[in-house]
Order: sequence, then C-alpha cells, then structure tokens
Amino acid sequence: MSKSAEKSYGRLRVAANLRAARLAAGLSQEDLAIKAGFHRSYVSQVERGITNITIDNACRLADFLGVDLAMLFSAEGLTKPPK
Amino acid sequence: MSKSAEKSYGRLRVAANLRAARLAAGLSQEDLAIKAGFHRSYVSQVERGITNITIDNACRLADFLGVDLAMLFSAEGLTKPPK
Repeated sequence: MSKSAEKSYGRLRVAANLRAARLAAGLSQEDLAIKAGFHRSYVSQVERGITNITIDNACRLADFLGVDLAMLFSAEGLTKPPK
Repeated sequence: MSKSAEKSYGRLRVAANLRAARLAAGLSQEDLAIKAGFHRSYVSQVERGITNITIDNACRLADFLGVDLAMLFSAEGLTKPPK
C-alpha cells in the first residue's frame, strides 16, 4: 500500500481496539510486541494501520491480551481506552 | 504453514462464517471470488483454512457479502449455514 492510499476501515478498527486492549493490560507497544513474540516495532505498525495484519497474528495478539478475537474487529468493541 | 500444522482458531472461524455468509448470498466459491476481485480459488482456500487471510481482504469479502467485518471473526456469528 502506498503512503497516500486510504487505510481499510478494518485496519482502523484493529488499530483502535488493539490500542485499547494493550492500554487496559498496562503494556507499552514494545512490551506487547516482544512478549507476544513479534518484532519490537510490530504493534506500533498495527496501531498506525500501516500493517495489513493476518488472522494468525490477530489471534496471537488477542490471546496474549485475553480479549475475544472478534472484538479486535468490532466497530464498537474496545475503541475507548481506559483513563 | 506446513500441511500438518494446526490451523489457528481464527482461520476456522473465518472459514465457517465466510461459508455461511456466502451460502446465504447464494453464491458459489468461485463466483464470490471472481466477483469480489480475487483469484478463482481464493475463497475455497479461505474456507479450507489454508490461507492466512489479511484484514484488507476480510474487509473486501465482508463488504461484498453485506456482513459486518467482526461477524467473520465471531465464535457465534454465522457458523450455521442456511438449509
């Protein structure tokens, strides 16, 4: 995807929901990435919508964070990070 | 993924839910694939769980079938195909 291309709404949903779940778990982007077995920059890339995440990796992140897989893709799910 | 490797539960969810939504739309695997802009074998591969589907492609299939993206990833969503 070029830098100017529009990000799919799915990427934006996963970005917001992953961020909310990560913050709820009290983890930094880098901590989550490394602990879940990814490159240290991976979570940052997903949360910026620049990675076209696969189902297998979404499963791994959902499992690590203890959230249901479908919530990562929900329009209403985890969009509000805890204060 | 090797043939003997276990498929992620996410792949199995997407496989079952995509199949249910496709049947509800009255489309064959090949029809859906071609009409939604994929290779003719793509939907078959997703429904067998051998493709590690990306979020962008999941969006495209959900939009074409008129289902919410999150339902493709749900444990309860569209798992029962219509008779």
